[in-house]
Amino acid sequence: MITSRRTARDIRSDSRLAVLHALLSAGEASRNDLARATGLSTATVATVVAELLAEGLVVGAGRNRSGVGRPSTSLRIDGSRGAILGVDVAETYVRTVVFDAALAPVGRFEVPLDEHENLPGYVVDGVGRSIDGALGEAGVERSRVLGVGVSLPGQVLPNAGVSVFAPNWDWRGVRILDLLRARVDLPLVLDNPLKAIATAELWFGAGRSVRSLVTINLGTGVGAGIVLDGRILRGVSNNAGEWGHSLLVLDGRECRCGRRGCVEAYVGARGIQQTLAEIDPDHPLLALGHQRDFISAVAGGLDEDASGPLAELLRRTGRYLGAGVADLVAILNPERVTLTGWTAWTLGEHLMAPTNAELAVQAPLGSASDVTLDVSTVRGGSVARGMATFAFERFLGDLGLLSVDR
Amino acid sequence: MITSRRTARDIRSDSRLAVLHALLSAGEASRNDLARATGLSTATVATVVAELLAEGLVVGAGRNRSGVGRPSTSLRIDGSRGAILGVDVAETYVRTVVFDAALAPVGRFEVPLDEHENLPGYVVDGVGRSIDGALGEAGVERSRVLGVGVSLPGQVLPNAGVSVFAPNWDWRGVRILDLLRARVDLPLVLDNPLKAIATAELWFGAGRSVRSLVTINLGTGVGAGIVLDGRILRGVSNNAGEWGHSLLVLDGRECRCGRRGCVEAYVGARGIQQTLAEIDPDHPLLALGHQRDFISAVAGGLDEDASGPLAELLRRTGRYLGAGVADLVAILNPERVTLTGWTAWTLGEHLMAPTNAELAVQAPLGSASDVTLDVSTVRGGSVARGMATFAFERFLGDLGLLSVDR
Ligand SMILES: [Zn+2]
Ligand SMILES: [Zn+2]
Repeated sequence: MITSRRTARDIRSDSRLAVLHALLSAGEASRNDLARATGLSTATVATVVAELLAEGLVVGAGRNRSGVGRPSTSLRIDGSRGAILGVDVAETYVRTVVFDAALAPVGRFEVPLDEHENLPGYVVDGVGRSIDGALGEAGVERSRVLGVGVSLPGQVLPNAGVSVFAPNWDWRGVRILDLLRARVDLPLVLDNPLKAIATAELWFGAGRSVRSLVTINLGTGVGAGIVLDGRILRGVSNNAGEWGHSLLVLDGRECRCGRRGCVEAYVGARGIQQTLAEIDPDHPLLALGHQRDFISAVAGGLDEDASGPLAELLRRTGRYLGAGVADLVAILNPERVTLTGWTAWTLGEHLMAPTNAELAVQAPLGSASDVTLDVSTVRGGSVARGMATFAFERFLGDLGLLSVDR
Repeated sequence: MITSRRTARDIRSDSRLAVLHALLSAGEASRNDLARATGLSTATVATVVAELLAEGLVVGAGRNRSGVGRPSTSLRIDGSRGAILGVDVAETYVRTVVFDAALAPVGRFEVPLDEHENLPGYVVDGVGRSIDGALGEAGVERSRVLGVGVSLPGQVLPNAGVSVFAPNWDWRGVRILDLLRARVDLPLVLDNPLKAIATAELWFGAGRSVRSLVTINLGTGVGAGIVLDGRILRGVSNNAGEWGHSLLVLDGRECRCGRRGCVEAYVGARGIQQTLAEIDPDHPLLALGHQRDFISAVAGGLDEDASGPLAELLRRTGRYLGAGVADLVAILNPERVTLTGWTAWTLGEHLMAPTNAELAVQAPLGSASDVTLDVSTVRGGSVARGMATFAFERFLGDLGLLSVDR
C-alpha cells in the first residue's frame, strides 16, 4: 500500500476531472449535485466550477428550484466551446467521429482501408482523409478543433508516440505520431482501442456507478478494457487487457495471434463461425463471407427459431464466453462486466442467459454473485468516443486544468 | 481517470507509509536517502521523520559521513518498540511468526490442525495455541504485542471480520474475528493469504524496485498476489488473485474447487503428481504420500539426473506454468512476476528455464519482453510476514499516523 507520489497539483487536477466527469454523466447539475456526486466539499466544487466557467468550458443552464432549500443554478458543459475528434483506425477502415465539447456526436465519416496495404504513409493518409471528411460532414472548421484522439491496433506507447508492434501491418517501432502530425496538423493523442473502450465505459457507461469494471470488446478481435478503483489499467507497456489472447484451451484452436487456444479463437467472430462449422459443416449461414453479416444472420435466425444448430451455437458460445469471463472475475474480482463491440450489440442479449449461467458455475469463491454482467449502454463507436475523451483530457491539460500523466 | 477521493489526511498518511516502507527496505537510511527513495521533498521527509521519532518508531542509528556533503544521521525502525505477530492458518497447520517492530522475525511456533475438523472453535483454539507457543518461543510478553495479523483461507472480508466462504471447512459467513478476539485478546486484523503474499512482496521483495507485480504462490494451493501502481488489488469482495482457479484447459483435469481445467490442477503439488503419473504411472516417487516430500524428491532427482521422466515432468510443468503466467501477463501487463511458496523454494530454480521459454512464446504483443520472472527473494513464511505487515499498518493507524482504508 505504498503511496503513489501525489502532489497538491494532482489533487486539484483530480477534483477538476471529478467535477467534469460528474457533469458529463449528469448532463446538467447544480454545485450541490456535483458535491454529492463527487464526494468533494461544496467549497472545492465552487472553486473548480469558477475555474471551468472562466475557461468557458462550463455554462449556466438556467435556474432550478429544488424541493428543499434555495434555488440553485444548474450547470452544463458548453458544447459550443469547440469540437473534439475520435478516430478509430482498424484493419479495414478508419472511422472519425466529430463530437462537440460536451462529447455529444455531431458527425462522422468512414474511409475504407485495404488490409493488404501496410505502409505507414497509407494508413496516415487514410486517417487524414477520414478527418477531413468528418469535419466536412459536421460542418466544423479546423480552427474549432480542440483535440484529436487516434486509436491504433496493437501495442502503442501514447507518450512516445510510437506504434511498438502492430501485427496486422507488421509494424515495429513506427514513429506514427510524427507522421500523423505532419499530415493532420491538429493537437493529437494516440492510444490503443482497449484503453479507449475502457475510458468510454468509465465516463459514459458503467463507470458512472461503479469504480471497478471490465468492458469486453467482441468483434473480429476480442479484448478487455479494465478500470480499477476509477483508473484505467494500462500495464507497464500499455498492453494490459489482452484477455482475448489468454487461454481458454491449452493447445486448442489456432488463433490469428499465433498462440493456440486463445479466448478470441472461440468468441471472436471467426471463432463463432468455426463453432457453427463444428456443429453443422453444411449450415447455410457459413456461406456468408462477411463476419458482420454472419453475426447478424445468427441473431436473426435465433429470433425466428430458438432450437436447432443456432441454438446449439448460442449455447456453446455462451459457455466459452462465460468461462472466459469467469477467468477475468477470478483474477480481478470486478464489480461489473459489460460487453461492447458489434458482436455484443447484435448478439449480446441472446448471449446473456447462457453466459451468466456458465459464469455462475465457473467463477471461484463467491465472485460470481458479486459481479453483474450486461451489454454496455455505450452504443456505437465506443473506441472513437473513448479517444475523444482522451483528447478532451489532453486539452484540459493544455489549459493547465489537468496534470496528464498517461 | 476519475480520481479516488483523497484528502490532505490521506496525503500525510501516504507520506508516512512511503517513508516507513523505504526505511524497512533499506534497513538504515538518512533523511536524504529517504527523500530520494520516496520522491518526497526533504522538508516532508523531515516532518514525517520527526513524527516517527516522537512515537518511538524510528531511532537514530549513528552518524555516517557520505562521500559528498555534510555528515547525515542514519535512521532505522526501532525493533524494540514492541512485537508484531503474523499468523498463517492453513488446512493442516497454524503457523505463528513473532516479528520485532522492524519486522525482523524473532520466533515461531506451529500447531497441527486435523483437516477433518471444521468447527470454528477448533480452528480458533489452534490459532490461540499457536500464538501462545510463539510468544513463549520468542520470550515476548503479551503486553509487548502491538498487533496480530491472521490469514485465513477462502474469502475473507477484513473490515467486517467475516469468513464469507472457506471451502475447505465448509464455512459460510462465520463471524471469525469476534471468535478470535474472545480467545486471543490482542489487536487483530484478518485477511486472505493472497493479499498477505502481495504485501510481503511489496514491502520486502520485488515491490522495493517495481510498482506493478504479481507474486504467484505455488504449493497445494495456487494463487496470485497482485500489486498495481504500488497498491494491492483486492477486488470488490477481496477475492482478486484467484488465478489458480482460472482456466488452463476448458474441460481439463478436475480441480478440488469443483471447476475443471484450472491452473492449480496442473501446477499445484497434486497437479505435478498427476503429470508424473501421466508420464510414468509406475514412477517410484509417486509412492511418497506427502506433497512436500514428493516435490523435494523431484528436485533432488533432477539434481542427480536431468533426463528421463523427471526431466519430462519439469518440461511439462514449466510449460503449464509458463502458459498460465502468460495469461496473467496478457491481462495485467506487470513489470515483474515472482514465484513464492514451498514448491517455488524447492523446485523454482529448475522451473525457470522451461517456464520462461513458454512465457516468451505465449505472451501477446511485446509483453513477455517487458516482464521479468524469477523466484521471490522473500523466503519462508511470506504469508505470516505479510499479515504482520498488515498488523503493523493497523498499529500505525491506531497511533493516528495512517488512515487505514482496507
Ligand atoms: Zn490469440
Ligand atoms: Zn480450481
